[in-house]
Amino acid sequence: MWGGAVLLLLAVTGAAHGTYRYTESWLTVPVDHFSFSNNATFKMRYLINDTFWQPEINAPIFFYTGNEGDITMFAENTGFLWETASDDFAALIVFAEHRYYGKSLPFGNESFSSPQKVGYLTSQQALADYVDLINHLMENLTTPVPVIAFGGSYGGMLAAYFRMKYPHVVQGAIAASAPIFQFPGLVPCGIFNMIVTSDFNSTSHECMKSIQKSWKTIDSFAGSESGRLWLNKNWKLCKPLNKTEDGLTLKTWLSDVLVNLAMVNYPYPSNFLAPLPAYPIKAMCRFLPNSSYSDKILLTSLFKALSVYTNYTGKTKCLNIQDDASPQLGESGWDFQACTEMVMPICSNDTKSMFEEAEWNFKKYSDSCYQKWKVRPQPDLAIKNYGGKDISAASNIVFSNGLLDPWAGGGVLRNYSDSLVAVLIPEGAHHLDLRARNAADPASVIQAREFHKHYIQQWMKQFYRQHKISPH
Amino acid sequence: MWGGAVLLLLAVTGAAHGTYRYTESWLTVPVDHFSFSNNATFKMRYLINDTFWQPEINAPIFFYTGNEGDITMFAENTGFLWETASDDFAALIVFAEHRYYGKSLPFGNESFSSPQKVGYLTSQQALADYVDLINHLMENLTTPVPVIAFGGSYGGMLAAYFRMKYPHVVQGAIAASAPIFQFPGLVPCGIFNMIVTSDFNSTSHECMKSIQKSWKTIDSFAGSESGRLWLNKNWKLCKPLNKTEDGLTLKTWLSDVLVNLAMVNYPYPSNFLAPLPAYPIKAMCRFLPNSSYSDKILLTSLFKALSVYTNYTGKTKCLNIQDDASPQLGESGWDFQACTEMVMPICSNDTKSMFEEAEWNFKKYSDSCYQKWKVRPQPDLAIKNYGGKDISAASNIVFSNGLLDPWAGGGVLRNYSDSLVAVLIPEGAHHLDLRARNAADPASVIQAREFHKHYIQQWMKQFYRQHKISPH
Repeated sequence: MWGGAVLLLLAVTGAAHGTYRYTESWLTVPVDHFSFSNNATFKMRYLINDTFWQPEINAPIFFYTGNEGDITMFAENTGFLWETASDDFAALIVFAEHRYYGKSLPFGNESFSSPQKVGYLTSQQALADYVDLINHLMENLTTPVPVIAFGGSYGGMLAAYFRMKYPHVVQGAIAASAPIFQFPGLVPCGIFNMIVTSDFNSTSHECMKSIQKSWKTIDSFAGSESGRLWLNKNWKLCKPLNKTEDGLTLKTWLSDVLVNLAMVNYPYPSNFLAPLPAYPIKAMCRFLPNSSYSDKILLTSLFKALSVYTNYTGKTKCLNIQDDASPQLGESGWDFQACTEMVMPICSNDTKSMFEEAEWNFKKYSDSCYQKWKVRPQPDLAIKNYGGKDISAASNIVFSNGLLDPWAGGGVLRNYSDSLVAVLIPEGAHHLDLRARNAADPASVIQAREFHKHYIQQWMKQFYRQHKISPH
Repeated sequence: MWGGAVLLLLAVTGAAHGTYRYTESWLTVPVDHFSFSNNATFKMRYLINDTFWQPEINAPIFFYTGNEGDITMFAENTGFLWETASDDFAALIVFAEHRYYGKSLPFGNESFSSPQKVGYLTSQQALADYVDLINHLMENLTTPVPVIAFGGSYGGMLAAYFRMKYPHVVQGAIAASAPIFQFPGLVPCGIFNMIVTSDFNSTSHECMKSIQKSWKTIDSFAGSESGRLWLNKNWKLCKPLNKTEDGLTLKTWLSDVLVNLAMVNYPYPSNFLAPLPAYPIKAMCRFLPNSSYSDKILLTSLFKALSVYTNYTGKTKCLNIQDDASPQLGESGWDFQACTEMVMPICSNDTKSMFEEAEWNFKKYSDSCYQKWKVRPQPDLAIKNYGGKDISAASNIVFSNGLLDPWAGGGVLRNYSDSLVAVLIPEGAHHLDLRARNAADPASVIQAREFHKHYIQQWMKQFYRQHKISPH
């Protein structure tokens, strides 16, 4: 069901587009940083704000390592970086767009048109772009300044990898909700869905049980004409179910919604695709108080529950289950990455899971990748490049994980050393700590942000010491 | 004069070819490790000896990161690795051949035929080959074993870079005579030739002064027909000088010889291209006791002095100054690398230098690279990739430098931390410490080898601790 290609979702906040001010800029970079066989270049986009920056006192550059989407979305949803850059560090703010996403398309509209063209979409090439951008930003400085990388989700992985591979370029990294262990053989593939299950179960056991029961009920309804008619009408499906197999589409959509809710289970109203209330799982579970409901009441209740996600504003006319669950992200790009190096097995193999049993079938996955992209996923590639769990030689990285976040299952949850540390945010969903401060923030996320600032200060001090710059 | 393309020479010992036993093996690796656009593969060669290895007690792999030449040459000239593998560590011995050298040609005879084909000759691609090879060697092991990288000269740079970029693959690196600072802006370009000068000067001031005087004398002889005739006869030139400009060929050849002598100024007879006596600079300088000799006596003495290098056996019929100074090395490959990422400025700009003044002219250098290869050198590329002098985040590397070695000028000569350390060998020439033990070894090189062993033991202990393996 999961196929390993689940998007690392970015939750879009309630902050209206344009909360933060930046200049859109461009830098020409090589398409291929690792050979001299291809001299093509392209323009990568980055967003920059130097309002707060004081380079004369060697104030730092805060550098967001863009992930799988339009960079403006990340700029809008990483309030912590903006707030601490202006309030605490007098930092330059830079959001770098990842190649093959947003407007940073190496071959324009043709970027995904052939294996040759899309083949330069790799994490290592993206990191090399970021090195070029930082060198460019440094060009006119008379004395060096420290660079701190920030990133959430896949962007958090990149922030960590950036420090690992280029410690002379970035002094430290805040890697929020970065599932760098979500690779074959490192963590059980079922852990992701067990965390989602736990999020629902801890909110309401009956709610979780209701969902667990719903899969078979949907199968049964989708399996008969009368059932489909009932579903089409009562779930207000835009495109009606016509055959038994259409039940799978509905179930896939439902799974995606449940996973998304777990990721964005934030303590205040937020806006992910559609506006959401605070603690949306709680809001949803209010409609599922009793798992022993009969089938139709169960499905009716579930539909109401889902309306928290699909129709919080009350304006949705019909339910579109063909919708991409996260249209703002670069789906093609991530699908290719998941089909090459970002092979992150997700399955459901625990009887306690609220999801249907679903194995991680690499063969099937590989075949579907080959069909789509003419590439085969390389399950060991990321481990080979970045070390898997063997990261102890790295330094100056904070790994933060919200324990409500299903991606925490593949995250770094323990300290490796004094400078390779983990922060746990029990009440946090997917990179809550990177978001703007909010009155409803739990104490643990407030603390995590203080922790980040403390480490950034330590890294800066180390930088000034190494570069013999007196602190200001 | 130097053009930055001086080969990082490997000194071939007196050990006859075939001193060490190994199996020649092959591994299929990707031509391009950093994109999915090119699926071509090739067979890289490696030499392996498992006679001494005890994997059952997690004994290490000693992995030589091959540099710019046929790997058998490195296997024959890295006696320390063989000796300590068998005597001290029960280690597996592996010598990996660098792509585009020896028999490891990605496109066979066509490997250098076009910018597209030769363009995959980069240090990062070579390191990625080595990662694949190590993973291959590990495939059938039931418990992990530590890998220690060894390398001399450019191979030493690779050993250090290997640990920097892939600390999860190599536990530590012995980087002998690795001039990782010989890049633009990091050390003065004149330092290399000043060390050569110092080697001669400290052997005999008159010898050094004689050489210093010889350039103008050669110019003057090459500038007249009678002078050329005299040189052709008295220097027994295979191909006579015909015009004034031919003097440059002679001077270039002479410079190369002098530099080579400084690099292989070993304390015992060795065999570099031609057999050499112990301390060849001393042997040579015996013929140049007086710098106030008149021109013809000076040139006659110099010719005799050079015979130490060109005709130690007395069998050379004529002097071939068109000869490549180091035909066993892969000249084309290194020339391309020097024209792309390995931009190592060498000049002669000190009045105390025994060499003619020669500026480091990047423009001219770049143009000649473009003419030969259709590429432009990227003087900042290596610094961008590997950090220049900013290597303090690395760990578990020993940098050893013989202070007689001109490449020591670009070497790491001070400790960065407890695990990033420098060893100086005052009486050592180019990676003397990697060579087989010899009765004539000075105390400093014996000590350096003990130092290496001590650090290897520390790194192994750390590995066993990290992998929870009880030491044997």
